[in-house]
Amino acid sequence: MNYGIIRRILGWVMLLEGAFLLPPSVIGACYGEHQIARIYLIIGLCAMAAGFALKSLPLKSRTFFAREGFVTTALSWIILALIGALPFTISGEIPSYVDALFEVISGFTTTGASILTNVEAMSHANLFWRSFTHWLGGMGVLVFILAILPMTGGSTMNLMRAESPGPSVGKLVPKIQQTAFYLYAIYFCMTVLLIVLLILAGMPVFDSFCTAFGTAGTGGFGVKADSIAGYSRLIQNIITLFMMLFGVNFSFYFYLLSRRYREALGMEEVRWYAGIYFAAVAVVTCSVTMAGSGRTVWENTQDALFQVASVMTTTGFATLNFNKWPQVARGVMVLVMFVGACAGSTGGGIKVSRIVLYIKQLRIEMMQQLHPRSVRTLRMDGKSVSRQVIQSSNTFLMAYILIFVFSFLIVTLDGFDLVTDFTAVTATINNIGPGLNVVGPAGNFSAFSDLSKFVLMFDMLAGRLELIPMLALFHPFTWKK
Amino acid sequence: MNYGIIRRILGWVMLLEGAFLLPPSVIGACYGEHQIARIYLIIGLCAMAAGFALKSLPLKSRTFFAREGFVTTALSWIILALIGALPFTISGEIPSYVDALFEVISGFTTTGASILTNVEAMSHANLFWRSFTHWLGGMGVLVFILAILPMTGGSTMNLMRAESPGPSVGKLVPKIQQTAFYLYAIYFCMTVLLIVLLILAGMPVFDSFCTAFGTAGTGGFGVKADSIAGYSRLIQNIITLFMMLFGVNFSFYFYLLSRRYREALGMEEVRWYAGIYFAAVAVVTCSVTMAGSGRTVWENTQDALFQVASVMTTTGFATLNFNKWPQVARGVMVLVMFVGACAGSTGGGIKVSRIVLYIKQLRIEMMQQLHPRSVRTLRMDGKSVSRQVIQSSNTFLMAYILIFVFSFLIVTLDGFDLVTDFTAVTATINNIGPGLNVVGPAGNFSAFSDLSKFVLMFDMLAGRLELIPMLALFHPFTWKK
Repeated sequence: MNYGIIRRILGWVMLLEGAFLLPPSVIGACYGEHQIARIYLIIGLCAMAAGFALKSLPLKSRTFFAREGFVTTALSWIILALIGALPFTISGEIPSYVDALFEVISGFTTTGASILTNVEAMSHANLFWRSFTHWLGGMGVLVFILAILPMTGGSTMNLMRAESPGPSVGKLVPKIQQTAFYLYAIYFCMTVLLIVLLILAGMPVFDSFCTAFGTAGTGGFGVKADSIAGYSRLIQNIITLFMMLFGVNFSFYFYLLSRRYREALGMEEVRWYAGIYFAAVAVVTCSVTMAGSGRTVWENTQDALFQVASVMTTTGFATLNFNKWPQVARGVMVLVMFVGACAGSTGGGIKVSRIVLYIKQLRIEMMQQLHPRSVRTLRMDGKSVSRQVIQSSNTFLMAYILIFVFSFLIVTLDGFDLVTDFTAVTATINNIGPGLNVVGPAGNFSAFSDLSKFVLMFDMLAGRLELIPMLALFHPFTWKK
Repeated sequence: MNYGIIRRILGWVMLLEGAFLLPPSVIGACYGEHQIARIYLIIGLCAMAAGFALKSLPLKSRTFFAREGFVTTALSWIILALIGALPFTISGEIPSYVDALFEVISGFTTTGASILTNVEAMSHANLFWRSFTHWLGGMGVLVFILAILPMTGGSTMNLMRAESPGPSVGKLVPKIQQTAFYLYAIYFCMTVLLIVLLILAGMPVFDSFCTAFGTAGTGGFGVKADSIAGYSRLIQNIITLFMMLFGVNFSFYFYLLSRRYREALGMEEVRWYAGIYFAAVAVVTCSVTMAGSGRTVWENTQDALFQVASVMTTTGFATLNFNKWPQVARGVMVLVMFVGACAGSTGGGIKVSRIVLYIKQLRIEMMQQLHPRSVRTLRMDGKSVSRQVIQSSNTFLMAYILIFVFSFLIVTLDGFDLVTDFTAVTATINNIGPGLNVVGPAGNFSAFSDLSKFVLMFDMLAGRLELIPMLALFHPFTWKK
């Protein structure tokens, strides 16, 4: 294990996070929250200083292999959380450090699960930081470092692979730094566009920024107790659209921008993504309408469009309490939670492309069993998928189930009903936010024990980092000489 | 598709089922239920006559490939159910034919899920038939045909593979008929031993037969409204032991009998099976004891031993209503439902050997990711597992999830709570019997709509036949020329 390079990257992470702590400080100052502004400023400067010192330590070798990649990724995110939670606790707005950790991990992993019982009581600086972590976590902090940090030595790809959502990371352009740069540019521009649209639609400026961060990162922290329910239909519909847009594989936009329209429109994942979304919306709309909610079909459709997008892209905003929907609609919501967004987007979940891989494997296996002598290869977007990608997709599913089962078991110790336990794990490992019953859109995660909270924090990190880095951290093989 | 051979085997199935309908007729006559005895006699003779006619039709070719195997398997079981449900409806004890079908499919697939609200109101003949289907379904009717029917042509293995539980069917001895014969002999002797022990322990003779059938087939239909709760502790403990014994891979007994002790004790699946069982028992005992049930630890341990064995071997007997246990214990029960028994036993579920395969794959993949250049092979019982077995185990999981998801969605239409819906599907696809809440040990499946009942019937058959044959029935590829 090359500890030197890990230390250096962790230094960069702290340096960057220190810088990112300054905007909330400015926001705090603007709103007259001087004490909190000072807290952010001091923590930010300290983090920068410590990070600078750490990254400047001498480096013996630049070799960087897979296990360094996993360890760096996992530790980076843990450090992000440990530092990022400080302002909440020091400002006294989330007195328990465990709760603050939960909140900030929920932020960075773009989950949006909250332990706050009254979000509107928070200061502007803290609210801003909370939403800002979504935006930072959305695209991955390490990819950002890759984009600005020229690293010599071969395996920088390992870092990107460990942090990027989805079964396979394609380099869109030959140089990885350039790929990262393009992705960030798209991300940044779309966020700015959303902020502008929200302001034009009449949302207050502060709310627009926070909501746009939550939407872009598919996070879901809101600044109001009723999430998005209090805003106009126009604003809600804009958010619906952008949630879905941020859940699309970013390669799609890259192809569009480079005028490779055929490749863009041929992306099977994006087509399945749209298909699953509209199918779920149709079922939800029908069931809610038939249950007689006293609202028009069009209103129900808009609600369904919003809620399904919110859950499927793993954002987690709410315009109403879908916990009160009919059982079919609740069932669909839970299922869509597992599907998640596209690989290569800011969303979480199992990812549409993996689901497609699973279904295709099943289809091929069926044919193989029926006609044992036929030979078929699994193709995606017209290209045959390597056995390695299939294998790691399959083991992803097993790791996923394993983590899910153990988390579920520990959470049941708290004695809530099984739907709460099940959806609490679902909502965190898939980085969604709200679940059902106690953790439904109108509830929160504050009632869980500290043990459960730690488990759910682990799940959020594991879900965001595609499981393996977090598991690797506890694997003896990682630490063997 | 060779329809001739399929017809011939289906003829044999009907002939056999006709013969199997005669014992209930005798039982009915013994207990003075003359009308019902006549019903069984007439249906039995008709089925035999029809079966004889069908099997005697001329046969053009004896080729028998995989798809004939799947179709024959699926159709055989459907025919078994269609005929086997007749006595229930004609005798008027289960007026709805859909309900009767549900009950008999639940019997043949060794599920034990019932739509009966008062089982004690049934006649002896019907109760006997109900439990007898468990015993017949336990080892598979087609394997029985294989054992008595000398078939020329290569692929009789396809038939056995399609009906046998587990990822791979090993021929214990070179000739498949002989393998089947040995397995049946073990099955038969163990059942007789159990009947004798139950009678010695003071159970009424009729109850002993029915309970032994339910235990041997890991079915779970009882003859009392309170299942096994009303019998003595001794009887309960005997049943606990035999449930576990019938959940063991039968190769284990074969090895023992042929004095290959080292191979028997080296079977990883059996060791995992025991390990998971005792771990689950420990957790359940602790949680129930700590919740303060007012009973001694030893009583709680015995209950846990019974209930966990009942659910893990997918039998489904109950000595108490585990639906009222603390959440942790309920959670453990649900998880154990998915694990199921060993491959090559009469039990259902995903099967311990598949779970072990999944965990081993995950372990190897982790090491591979951490050290990309290392090469490792997956070994089980010291032998390397073929890529084909791994692949079909993986696609099994995907088919399983797919069927589960669709079934769950349709069942939610009935508007029960999600735990009921979830565990109803769990209990049927894993061939267990009781679930939680509405379908808990104290409840039954009668409240579901006919649509849901059909879906759950499909799940029971799919679960018993390891998914693929039932899926193949609906696959256009199967019917293509």
